[in-house]
Amino acid sequence: MQNFTYYNPTRVHFGAGQIERITSEIPKGQRVLMLYGGGSIHKNGVYDQVKQALSGATVFEFSGIEPNPEYETLMKAVRLIREKNIDFLLAVGGGSVIDGCKFIAAAALFEGDPWMILEKQAPIENAMPYGCVLTLPATGSEMNNGSVVSRRAQGAKLYFTHPKVFPQFSILDPTTTYSLPLKQVGNGVVDAFTHVMEQYLTYPVSARLQDRFAESILQTLIEIGPQTLSHPLDYGIRSDFMWCTSWALNGLLGSGVPQDWTTHMIGHELTAKYGLDHAQTLAIVLPTVMRYKQAAKHEKLLQYAQRVWHITSGSDAQRIDHCIANTRQFFEAMGLKTTLAGYGITPDIAALIDQLKQHDRTHLGERGDITLTDCEGILRMC
Amino acid sequence: MQNFTYYNPTRVHFGAGQIERITSEIPKGQRVLMLYGGGSIHKNGVYDQVKQALSGATVFEFSGIEPNPEYETLMKAVRLIREKNIDFLLAVGGGSVIDGCKFIAAAALFEGDPWMILEKQAPIENAMPYGCVLTLPATGSEMNNGSVVSRRAQGAKLYFTHPKVFPQFSILDPTTTYSLPLKQVGNGVVDAFTHVMEQYLTYPVSARLQDRFAESILQTLIEIGPQTLSHPLDYGIRSDFMWCTSWALNGLLGSGVPQDWTTHMIGHELTAKYGLDHAQTLAIVLPTVMRYKQAAKHEKLLQYAQRVWHITSGSDAQRIDHCIANTRQFFEAMGLKTTLAGYGITPDIAALIDQLKQHDRTHLGERGDITLTDCEGILRMC
Repeated sequence: MQNFTYYNPTRVHFGAGQIERITSEIPKGQRVLMLYGGGSIHKNGVYDQVKQALSGATVFEFSGIEPNPEYETLMKAVRLIREKNIDFLLAVGGGSVIDGCKFIAAAALFEGDPWMILEKQAPIENAMPYGCVLTLPATGSEMNNGSVVSRRAQGAKLYFTHPKVFPQFSILDPTTTYSLPLKQVGNGVVDAFTHVMEQYLTYPVSARLQDRFAESILQTLIEIGPQTLSHPLDYGIRSDFMWCTSWALNGLLGSGVPQDWTTHMIGHELTAKYGLDHAQTLAIVLPTVMRYKQAAKHEKLLQYAQRVWHITSGSDAQRIDHCIANTRQFFEAMGLKTTLAGYGITPDIAALIDQLKQHDRTHLGERGDITLTDCEGILRMC
Repeated sequence: MQNFTYYNPTRVHFGAGQIERITSEIPKGQRVLMLYGGGSIHKNGVYDQVKQALSGATVFEFSGIEPNPEYETLMKAVRLIREKNIDFLLAVGGGSVIDGCKFIAAAALFEGDPWMILEKQAPIENAMPYGCVLTLPATGSEMNNGSVVSRRAQGAKLYFTHPKVFPQFSILDPTTTYSLPLKQVGNGVVDAFTHVMEQYLTYPVSARLQDRFAESILQTLIEIGPQTLSHPLDYGIRSDFMWCTSWALNGLLGSGVPQDWTTHMIGHELTAKYGLDHAQTLAIVLPTVMRYKQAAKHEKLLQYAQRVWHITSGSDAQRIDHCIANTRQFFEAMGLKTTLAGYGITPDIAALIDQLKQHDRTHLGERGDITLTDCEGILRMC
């Protein structure tokens, strides 16, 4: 096991009716900016519940944070915070709103050009306090300190992480997800699944507990994924789905183990160029990376085949083929395509490689040995 | 799944050489009280490493915190803290030293008789900040907010929990455990195993991830338990052991699920009366509770048999017998007896029931239906 520091101070209130906890979580008399996306929270009753819980505060609103949150949009919120002397932020939505809120929390107190936080990982000194009401389980943003922001004018999708930007609290009420379009649920399952895989499918380092925790989430997602599509109002299944997505990317699985993130890095460029959903890009790239790097990931692929898919017969090569095929099939059962052609895209590979180069993604993978030439090979197989 | 709040703000620094992190974790110029047990940290080099890391602080020492820490001892430390104007506590040792430190941290700022914190769960307003250097993996105290304290004059072993008494940081360096007597290692494995079982072996509530996380720790302990006895200097195995013990009791497994704690409650009375090690009492009581409550725990016993021990053949009753026998065998392989007779004890059952009554342990178990009559039945089977 490698040395690590594990730290996660977010307080999670989980279950039906927990939105009312906001009242005690946000200090009385604060000036609160409520951040959200489109109109869905007006339709499913979440907006009203949140406003009710905030009745002791002075509340301002900023809506319109889009999927793959846009830098220019987020900077509008930063200006509003300064203008209205906001004390506390409350993100109500999915990973995009929460990632956006995280960046806003850091940018509002940043001296200099906030774009540098993303482009140059400029160090931040502090961030505004914020809480979350999660309505779309997928990214784990509600319980981690990472944020991904896009700037379409530059074809950029970049991230930053910092210990100061953990949410102070997050409300996870599975009933708020009942009205989600099934497409978003399928995307969420694939996103969480891929988060686990990027921290798991590398090489063994005697980290038996991290491996088994990872396999626990993978097995649970495989079990409940199809069920939560066919029974969207089943509280128990939605609860398991929601809790899986938080633990898929809150620091635990990656503690003390090597990590890949190739699939995400290539996926970000596909989203930036073609506007595909984040999860759609992952469902395309992950099985291809598994195939392309099967020699380097040999031992963990066999472990994955056996423990997650219970594949015990056949040669090593056959078992690896089998588990990659199962992964692809699972993503398709969740409603996603697993090839670019499935979305009618013939990729401009030279342009994508150029983007990767521009964003310094020249040495990816758990060993830093996935070069731009390899990325080209992977993209050709996508 | 039941509603819950999950919160765990302890920062864990894991790995060889991490003791030096103390220097940056404790603010400069603080008056630090270093708390420890007997002399083992002088022999294994931990004392010197800690003192080195504390070279910028004014350090006082309080040693002699015993296994099953004694109230009267801990109150001496509280008086020293007041006398020397201590700012920060540093517990160096295993669960007893850390539990003791937790109580000291609360008692030092408590107005009134600190015994009430334990006997009456008197509310505390605040606690002193403290950190830990864990040298004996077992109780999970380094990453939770619970503390068990004994008062032999009253035959009492009582606990308290409070959100204010999480460690600010904990250092987990597996090499500090290399010199542990094997008896303590075996005890640690059984203690952690039982912590998981008390949160797992109840009844199903659609908490698939909590179940699988619990099974992950159980399987890992079964795999590495015998190995870490036979290969005490194997860093990877010791690391897995150490990380398992922290997650066995840091709030995660018990979130959203019913919990039993019957084994611990009965075990505490056995320690109070006969001075048995904590883990020795667990190894005796747990298999008996599994047997005595097999009807109420039927579904989870079958799940445990299948997923943890891979027992798939035989009738339900046979599979349950088989997994209880395996559990007993595993504890014995770790060097513990699983009957009172094994320690030459013929229990004074009336006296033990009296102790349970005096400590209000009259409705135990996940359904609160384990009465004193049941405890008597369990004790007769021990």
